[in-house]
Amino acid sequence: MKGAIIGAILFEGWATTHEAAERLVLDGEVEFEPCHHYGAVGPMAGIISPSMPLWVIENKTNGRRAFSNFNEGLGKVLRFGANNDEVLQRLHWMKDELAPALKAAVRVLGELELKPIMAQALHMGDEVHNRNAAATGLLIKRLVPALLTTGLPIEQIQRVTAFIIGNDHFFLNLSMAACKAMMDAAHNVPFSSLITVMARNGVNFGIRMSGTGDRWFQAPANPVEGLFFPGYGVEDAAADLGDSAITETAGVGGFAMASSPAIVRNFFRLCVARFI
Amino acid sequence: MKGAIIGAILFEGWATTHEAAERLVLDGEVEFEPCHHYGAVGPMAGIISPSMPLWVIENKTNGRRAFSNFNEGLGKVLRFGANNDEVLQRLHWMKDELAPALKAAVRVLGELELKPIMAQALHMGDEVHNRNAAATGLLIKRLVPALLTTGLPIEQIQRVTAFIIGNDHFFLNLSMAACKAMMDAAHNVPFSSLITVMARNGVNFGIRMSGTGDRWFQAPANPVEGLFFPGYGVEDAAADLGDSAITETAGVGGFAMASSPAIVRNFFRLCVARFI
Repeated sequence: MKGAIIGAILFEGWATTHEAAERLVLDGEVEFEPCHHYGAVGPMAGIISPSMPLWVIENKTNGRRAFSNFNEGLGKVLRFGANNDEVLQRLHWMKDELAPALKAAVRVLGELELKPIMAQALHMGDEVHNRNAAATGLLIKRLVPALLTTGLPIEQIQRVTAFIIGNDHFFLNLSMAACKAMMDAAHNVPFSSLITVMARNGVNFGIRMSGTGDRWFQAPANPVEGLFFPGYGVEDAAADLGDSAITETAGVGGFAMASSPAIVRNFFRLCVARFI
Repeated sequence: MKGAIIGAILFEGWATTHEAAERLVLDGEVEFEPCHHYGAVGPMAGIISPSMPLWVIENKTNGRRAFSNFNEGLGKVLRFGANNDEVLQRLHWMKDELAPALKAAVRVLGELELKPIMAQALHMGDEVHNRNAAATGLLIKRLVPALLTTGLPIEQIQRVTAFIIGNDHFFLNLSMAACKAMMDAAHNVPFSSLITVMARNGVNFGIRMSGTGDRWFQAPANPVEGLFFPGYGVEDAAADLGDSAITETAGVGGFAMASSPAIVRNFFRLCVARFI
């Protein structure tokens, strides 16, 4: 998360070196708040800074909105704490070329319903948290015809299409924001004990309950028992982090894993590895 | 099949009325042969005439090729025996605009491997015979970026993309031709009793066996016990027809139905309907 904060400061142009960025933070010049305080969700480090383009998800029943940033793909990306030139250049490209193209495409579509995509993807091997291959494919089927009618230069459409098609997790941030919108609808119901937010920041695991409004209930975040490079173990790793647990809050993700054989297989492998 | 033959004759311009087309056939002016005699497969009526564009599938191990026509979509289409202006205009569009675009896209790609698409689609709810939604989506992910770099007019790319995205069965003919290529590799093995072809023409069900070469073994085609419009029953219907059973010959389709919950549900509904 520290790496992502420095990356975001460099991306915003508030500082030009890592050291200057860190000093800005330590001097209290940068304000931090949880994404959830703004109806937003961000995967992993979850850092969203003011110039980053957002998905806007509207719950048409109550008119309320939820937000998420765009998925950068895998490898060196801000949400994993990377902040080198490659990461910053990609963020600038996403702001300057990807976002305007998607905005134009969504305007052509008028709107893009997410629940049918998620429902169909759940039947196609996704659990819409760690696997979004089918949902991204279904999104592409809707976005690309719209992109082609935007009148944007063909080279821009090529690059945008290649970026989205090359990232099977592209739908993740939409899934998260859609789940956020769904859970917000259940929030602030008097006496309701439904959990409407689960989020982790690498230190604490926080939940919000419908009937207790904006109050956070926190406990230490759980360690992540996964596969580590040789010589490293769970004691070297950050605890669980990210807003993506909003998918489990809504009942998909880990709770829909049975519909996602490819993920179950990996999960099973991890279990076997632990017993060996 | 009679309707499709008339439609193909009109499409080729060999006659301009249905009556003239029928007379050509009855006068023996049109030659007919099974698709399989040319390494080809066609779904349902399975009529392929000389001017129709084809997919060319190469088995890179033995260099042999299999062929199929392009899928027209659902509704009024030649493979279901429809032959009105809408059907013929679509066939002309497929020849004049769709085929050159796909040819250009495939040239950009160099080649397009089908087995990985089919393997992944089987994990995404397709059985690659009656359900090809995932496979078509995976195909789109490969074709569209290539289409965008062909230099073709954007309007043509729009129409071609919309046509493919609008037809979840678009991959079917590729699946069939890929299965044909796979089964051909097992054909003509001395003393082998493996079935390498299953095909129906609405009258007979024919099989070919590896060790007996080009000989057809035939029996009456089975009736199709499905859902009928009120007042109609299985006695009004044509018997089973089409080359698409090549998918079952290769072990997918009906034999992979367990991987396709959406199809299993419909199949189960049919079973229930029969018992009621």
